[in-house]
Amino acid sequence: MRGLALAALLLLVPSMSDARPRAREAGIEIGILSPGPLNAITDVAGVEVGHVTLIEGQTIRTGVTAIRPHGGNLYQDKVPAGFAVANGYGKFMGSTQIRELGEIETPILLTNTMSVPEAAAGIIEWTIAQPGNEEVRSVNAVVGETNDGYLNDIRARRVRKEAAIAAIDAAQSGPVQEGSVGAGTGTIAFSWKGGIGTSSRKLPQTLGGYTVGVLVQSNYGGALVVDGARVGEALGKYYLKNEVASDEADGSVIIVIATDAPLSDRNLERLAHRAFVGIARTGSPITNGSGDYAVAFSTHEAVRRPPARREAASTIGELPNEMMSPLFQAAAEATEEAVINSLFASETMDGHQGRIEGLPIEEVVRLHQRIKGD
Amino acid sequence: MRGLALAALLLLVPSMSDARPRAREAGIEIGILSPGPLNAITDVAGVEVGHVTLIEGQTIRTGVTAIRPHGGNLYQDKVPAGFAVANGYGKFMGSTQIRELGEIETPILLTNTMSVPEAAAGIIEWTIAQPGNEEVRSVNAVVGETNDGYLNDIRARRVRKEAAIAAIDAAQSGPVQEGSVGAGTGTIAFSWKGGIGTSSRKLPQTLGGYTVGVLVQSNYGGALVVDGARVGEALGKYYLKNEVASDEADGSVIIVIATDAPLSDRNLERLAHRAFVGIARTGSPITNGSGDYAVAFSTHEAVRRPPARREAASTIGELPNEMMSPLFQAAAEATEEAVINSLFASETMDGHQGRIEGLPIEEVVRLHQRIKGD
Amino acid sequence: MRGLALAALLLLVPSMSDARPRAREAGIEIGILSPGPLNAITDVAGVEVGHVTLIEGQTIRTGVTAIRPHGGNLYQDKVPAGFAVANGYGKFMGSTQIRELGEIETPILLTNTMSVPEAAAGIIEWTIAQPGNEEVRSVNAVVGETNDGYLNDIRARRVRKEAAIAAIDAAQSGPVQEGSVGAGTGTIAFSWKGGIGTSSRKLPQTLGGYTVGVLVQSNYGGALVVDGARVGEALGKYYLKNEVASDEADGSVIIVIATDAPLSDRNLERLAHRAFVGIARTGSPITNGSGDYAVAFSTHEAVRRPPARREAASTIGELPNEMMSPLFQAAAEATEEAVINSLFASETMDGHQGRIEGLPIEEVVRLHQRIKGD
Amino acid sequence: MRGLALAALLLLVPSMSDARPRAREAGIEIGILSPGPLNAITDVAGVEVGHVTLIEGQTIRTGVTAIRPHGGNLYQDKVPAGFAVANGYGKFMGSTQIRELGEIETPILLTNTMSVPEAAAGIIEWTIAQPGNEEVRSVNAVVGETNDGYLNDIRARRVRKEAAIAAIDAAQSGPVQEGSVGAGTGTIAFSWKGGIGTSSRKLPQTLGGYTVGVLVQSNYGGALVVDGARVGEALGKYYLKNEVASDEADGSVIIVIATDAPLSDRNLERLAHRAFVGIARTGSPITNGSGDYAVAFSTHEAVRRPPARREAASTIGELPNEMMSPLFQAAAEATEEAVINSLFASETMDGHQGRIEGLPIEEVVRLHQRIKGD
Repeated sequence: MRGLALAALLLLVPSMSDARPRAREAGIEIGILSPGPLNAITDVAGVEVGHVTLIEGQTIRTGVTAIRPHGGNLYQDKVPAGFAVANGYGKFMGSTQIRELGEIETPILLTNTMSVPEAAAGIIEWTIAQPGNEEVRSVNAVVGETNDGYLNDIRARRVRKEAAIAAIDAAQSGPVQEGSVGAGTGTIAFSWKGGIGTSSRKLPQTLGGYTVGVLVQSNYGGALVVDGARVGEALGKYYLKNEVASDEADGSVIIVIATDAPLSDRNLERLAHRAFVGIARTGSPITNGSGDYAVAFSTHEAVRRPPARREAASTIGELPNEMMSPLFQAAAEATEEAVINSLFASETMDGHQGRIEGLPIEEVVRLHQRIKGD
Repeated sequence: MRGLALAALLLLVPSMSDARPRAREAGIEIGILSPGPLNAITDVAGVEVGHVTLIEGQTIRTGVTAIRPHGGNLYQDKVPAGFAVANGYGKFMGSTQIRELGEIETPILLTNTMSVPEAAAGIIEWTIAQPGNEEVRSVNAVVGETNDGYLNDIRARRVRKEAAIAAIDAAQSGPVQEGSVGAGTGTIAFSWKGGIGTSSRKLPQTLGGYTVGVLVQSNYGGALVVDGARVGEALGKYYLKNEVASDEADGSVIIVIATDAPLSDRNLERLAHRAFVGIARTGSPITNGSGDYAVAFSTHEAVRRPPARREAASTIGELPNEMMSPLFQAAAEATEEAVINSLFASETMDGHQGRIEGLPIEEVVRLHQRIKGD
Repeated sequence: MRGLALAALLLLVPSMSDARPRAREAGIEIGILSPGPLNAITDVAGVEVGHVTLIEGQTIRTGVTAIRPHGGNLYQDKVPAGFAVANGYGKFMGSTQIRELGEIETPILLTNTMSVPEAAAGIIEWTIAQPGNEEVRSVNAVVGETNDGYLNDIRARRVRKEAAIAAIDAAQSGPVQEGSVGAGTGTIAFSWKGGIGTSSRKLPQTLGGYTVGVLVQSNYGGALVVDGARVGEALGKYYLKNEVASDEADGSVIIVIATDAPLSDRNLERLAHRAFVGIARTGSPITNGSGDYAVAFSTHEAVRRPPARREAASTIGELPNEMMSPLFQAAAEATEEAVINSLFASETMDGHQGRIEGLPIEEVVRLHQRIKGD
Repeated sequence: MRGLALAALLLLVPSMSDARPRAREAGIEIGILSPGPLNAITDVAGVEVGHVTLIEGQTIRTGVTAIRPHGGNLYQDKVPAGFAVANGYGKFMGSTQIRELGEIETPILLTNTMSVPEAAAGIIEWTIAQPGNEEVRSVNAVVGETNDGYLNDIRARRVRKEAAIAAIDAAQSGPVQEGSVGAGTGTIAFSWKGGIGTSSRKLPQTLGGYTVGVLVQSNYGGALVVDGARVGEALGKYYLKNEVASDEADGSVIIVIATDAPLSDRNLERLAHRAFVGIARTGSPITNGSGDYAVAFSTHEAVRRPPARREAASTIGELPNEMMSPLFQAAAEATEEAVINSLFASETMDGHQGRIEGLPIEEVVRLHQRIKGD
């Protein structure tokens, strides 16, 4: 019945980005390491992603994206996690408990700035309703957000907790829809249409063979650089072009990093910080008005925290500090590529306050080819 | 109409604690410095406090407490603020933006753990509806919480955003109701009935003459110490009494500190940390499952951030590091006394899972007199 | 030859505090838990402590205290560690690497503020000279300090790196000398003579049976409270007595915490923070000019980081968050008692700028008995 | 006499990099904003830089670089400052007090990892000897470092405190020598010879007209990117080329940022974090073994902390959060260019363990021209 109610509320947009290639398909191969088979966060086994997209009339362009570290009962089988802030203008929820306990116990939701409470309410309702959670009286809902207030009538607070629950329920493994879907429905990046993007890296066996997957909600600015090509300046759209300290570069970016490496929460926090290496390379100075947050978790069985490991001393897996650098490289690269993918996937959109153009892919590819020397 | 709806929902409890003295009235004079005239957070001019208390049937014992740094439009006339975590098990909302920008732009709400989203939704709705905020598209709601899940059926999530808004609207200067009201309705501290408590200190003129006011929502544990008297042990209720690592000492405490000293956000953050000096002295080891958070703000005109100061370079007031120690002393003392006041004010309560006794004041006073040597 | 040179430089003071009882011997039993056999940091098996005391003429009253987490090659067999700051006025060295990597690779030295470089130089020289460290080209020396500039002519920088090395070489297990020795030779606490103090707690088997040991270098102020008894006020020596914001309460306190519980670096950081629960209870508001730092490490074999664990994924021991609270209680209690022990052990001393009285133990005991109701 | 002793010890290298152009002279114009007249940290009026270079025989390749925020008595006329860590493997000294008090009271020194104590000893000696500092008994020496242990016999600890003092005394305004000088004498970046580099940005008047100057000590790795051109890969030298998790990319980078904008310490800390936007763009993933630290200070008279402002409430200057983004852009760009300048200026060097080639400038320029489309 909840499903029926939702069906009336939202308009699912299944194939919006079908015609636009991903960056790598267009010949833009960011970094040194190779992607996993899907080049998506779901290359980390067990990770699931779900979107609810809300497009209504001329003014509603928003949604919710859910990332589930695994498909089981997260509250009972917690995963270690780390959190990083590059600029804390933003309403990320749940961060202090991640820092203190080093773990996540719910799905991670992304939505718009003004709908964080509804997303959190959805997580709580979903969590306490799960079998086995009948006695749960404390839930640390993890919610990231960016501000889609140009294309979306954000003051209308159209996202309800039912949409949050629906996004969790819709989460699945396999390919991840990118572009103007879920929490990326109404976002803007570098003055072009932003959205959801994803990418992954798989380390060679000599470096451990681990996978790092990234999903971003891009909604920030600067002077767009695509794999070294100064696209923003070349196309005449960039921060400070008019020497005015406006806030047009503001917005935010949320980055979710998954890995199957057996990392401590401290090393997951370090991994989360490397997301901003990728963000920096896309051309952002990490502006004052931007909420730039990253959260990283490990799915490895040997570091999860099921009840048995929370009741007594135990042994857990541990990858040493000395093996972290390749994972850092992976997180940086995959974040950079996920952002470019979000731009490649997002078509021109009309909304609340006007139109935002999709990134002109052909021109970008042409500019980028100079670097490759092709 | 909203008022009418609320009237049906909640039961205001105006004079629950009339018969119980405050700690100082009972001869317990904590610390070296003197309180302000009300011995309350509202001794800091302009600060307002409001409670909504929800007591329904046998199971609902919860509420919302609102603290307004000033009665004006906080979003337009922001106040500098600092935030401190002693143990981050908890769902405090809005902390990362306080840290990054050093300011608060909404009332501060306190409620129960599972109702943080509803409180935040109330703050957002209230803020965007204020005259002058018609273009506001981003609101950093600040919400603290503790877990009242023993006396209150917390899974019912009885607090709605209307209650949050009502608490803000109810905020006023003057004496502050303490005990089992607002966010303290269903809380427990040191295995006795906890609740809301407040206290203040006024520095001598030689030290600047500033006022520091504190309000706490007490819901934590340990071995209660009242101004040095080991009450918990004497009365046979204390953490680890049975040498079992249960979580009975868990819970949380939220501390809100106001001052009229012209402090930078950095020095407000330092001031916030001193709240935990007071908490430590009440007998808490700051347990694993406790969410112990403090937020401090200044109301001084010379450090506020109205639009003019946010648009260009300006001059602001500044109290130097070298004058902070007396304020630190004040914050520590007032926090300790506010906790004791919360216990003194809270009567025995029956609720969802059973009965929690009020602190036996006469016995406590007797134990305390030994220290004073009376 | 180094030994000979040193022999000329320093005056070892073996039995300065023989006549003064420890707090517990005088009937002051702080807290709920029981101490270990020595009531010292060395109750944690393997931990070693060494002092070099420098008393020369009327002006030199300083020294070095070394804490070795274990007697082996620490650089090769690193220990996990956490670091906490209550007030960062101070020159603690090595903290950022402890935070980043979660480990300690050298002895911990304590000395005076202006001699941190010499202590660090000593650690580096000692470390690279150890067998097995022939290729070491980076050493994270960990040095804490407090300012003994009243009794000691601190500007003379009398501590040389040879004294630092001698303190490391002198480190041994067994009873720990307290009072005006080593880094505590010239320190002042609460306007009485401070110094080195130590204490420990052993958890009951039901709580894991772990030991927590603490060593402090006390050199700070406030209004002294001894196990609840307001001694500072009673004896007329306390911060703000004259309502002047002088810095007489300043100074610093360094706390070193050892445990044999198999803790992660994150939980060791949390444990380090609990030191300040104890400091708060002694009567300090943690003043502006104080450098209040704590470092905690674990000696448990299952969490150490020998070469094999730094080269590949491995398994390590882990005590869960949920079992931390009793350890927090232990760290808080042992820190409080270690400070009181430092005051009990320190006799009146004359030095560079005048005389500092030893704490009048009989009066303190008398004041304290009121609390106990004896 | 100290001067004489030093003259025998060190070999000043006045014009090592004369033949090599700076990046901008070679047509590489990084970023959107324009540099100041010198394109150096000394474009911020009053800032002074001094180097002492130690080259002896085949094995000593090290030195000290001093940055003085102003030429006066820094201890008496402190400057507000902020500190940032991207990866805390490193021995940066003085950071906790910068964080707590938001200020710097000494020159900033850079040197090699194992000589931090000697540099700190030099700062202390220099500071207490300055006229007006006769009563100073506490000095927070600020020292950054990187590991030059390949070209330099770092275990010999050749830097003495006299060299540190000489670097401070040598500090002057005007052009800054870059390349293999001072603390950059023996460093390596991206497997080429690294060293000291500097750059600056001057904001347009519409954005405040402020200057941001940066100086770096480059000694880290990754896959070198020069203004978007993937130089490291093109020339076959890059991290993970051989899929081995060696530590060849390790090392460190210290970034010092000066500005004349009237910033709070909080906003200086934010500015310091933007250094790593520039570092990320040069191709570093910020590896595990790297000590990547930044410190930023303001020289503006209205935010300095002379005695009068440390004794009583006062008014100070303040640039609001809302005007920070252009400064963030400036810090990111200037850091990126300073690193590239450090590589451009550093010639091939033979040393302790072998030879490190200078960056082949002609090839780099050729690779870079593809991007510009020239």
